[in-house]
Amino acid sequence: MSDAYYLHLTDRLREQLKDPDAFEDGRLPSERVLAERFDTTRVTLRQALGQLEGEGRIHRSNRRGWFVSPPRLDYDPTRDSGFNDYVTAQGRRPRTEVLLTDVQAYPPAAQALGLAAQTPLYHIRRRRFVDERAVLSESMWVVPERAPGLLEEGQFGVSLWAELRGRYGLTLAHRELRFYSESLGEQAARELGVAMGSPGLTVRRATFDEQHRPIGYDEERWLHNALCITVTLKNKP
Amino acid sequence: MSDAYYLHLTDRLREQLKDPDAFEDGRLPSERVLAERFDTTRVTLRQALGQLEGEGRIHRSNRRGWFVSPPRLDYDPTRDSGFNDYVTAQGRRPRTEVLLTDVQAYPPAAQALGLAAQTPLYHIRRRRFVDERAVLSESMWVVPERAPGLLEEGQFGVSLWAELRGRYGLTLAHRELRFYSESLGEQAARELGVAMGSPGLTVRRATFDEQHRPIGYDEERWLHNALCITVTLKNKP
Repeated sequence: MSDAYYLHLTDRLREQLKDPDAFEDGRLPSERVLAERFDTTRVTLRQALGQLEGEGRIHRSNRRGWFVSPPRLDYDPTRDSGFNDYVTAQGRRPRTEVLLTDVQAYPPAAQALGLAAQTPLYHIRRRRFVDERAVLSESMWVVPERAPGLLEEGQFGVSLWAELRGRYGLTLAHRELRFYSESLGEQAARELGVAMGSPGLTVRRATFDEQHRPIGYDEERWLHNALCITVTLKNKP
Repeated sequence: MSDAYYLHLTDRLREQLKDPDAFEDGRLPSERVLAERFDTTRVTLRQALGQLEGEGRIHRSNRRGWFVSPPRLDYDPTRDSGFNDYVTAQGRRPRTEVLLTDVQAYPPAAQALGLAAQTPLYHIRRRRFVDERAVLSESMWVVPERAPGLLEEGQFGVSLWAELRGRYGLTLAHRELRFYSESLGEQAARELGVAMGSPGLTVRRATFDEQHRPIGYDEERWLHNALCITVTLKNKP
């Protein structure tokens, strides 16, 4: 059970995972069967499976064993494209659930938007799915005077930004984004059906109009293995 | 030991962590002392500490207890600024160690650059520190014909890109970046002094010149709580 053997086993399993037909229904054989097939111990096998889980290639489903993870969704924050559009463009199926709408003060949103900490904001909480897997728990806060009545009539199941553009004529001219790794807190973990403390990727975004007036702020909590952020840059000549 | 109390405790600890003078040398009191101070059990306390660790606010040091984590480094991939420059600009102290230089074929690099999988490439492996904490394990592959003799004379302790620009007159005109969460593999974890499988953030970058000829490719593995990617976008009017 040397380090070298565990790494070799990880490589072999990783190769097999690239073959879409290698595992029926995307489900790996049991650990017992895998250990026999690769002539190794359960301990070494679990090291290799743990490594592949960390790489986002496989995931565990409660009591049902190991499954091949779907490919990460590519997300290009420099393009002005909504969730439904970029998921569909990648041949995947998007779905959005509205979990909650209310009015609340949220100091981190207010701070990012340059408002007083206790400013009441429209708040919309959504859960988003790709191919029926919950991958994203999202909260969005909108400055009420920019979109009066938003909560009464809004259709947040598709694109909130389309609503802000179309119904309120807002221009999303300036956005400040922050991405970082952060484990999932209690609420996001529950909404995504994983254990609290599971690794996640957080995206925070503050949006302003052409006059740099604040429009809204959102926080996205993604499953760590669901997303890849891609950016293509061209230097000015 | 209700969920609510653990969340309340997490909030209280999080507040204390914001006060830079609350803990001497950035070190938290022992778990026994903390449990007494907050009138809670060790189990609940550890839940709260685990949550704060996941948020990147504290980290464990082998056998020495819990420490306040330094703030994340901001990194803006849309700016053409090297590690030393953006670390220094944030009032932090950068250091780079060259671990290895050799010539190797690396199929993922070749693929990203549009080359045959077994193309030999110059390879430079470095470890980078912020305020003497190892935060980044990096491998870079450079197309030999674009920088002949690079490995013999290069000074990779500062900026490899400055070397490629200054000595070889290369223009880094086009870059394709990918960011995602991935746990640290055996080598990166060892180089960063953390347990294998610890959460990490991976950055992959392929760089091309003005004629879209490949220059180089690099893979960065960051400690999950060391980095925040920031991007500011302005829509074209």
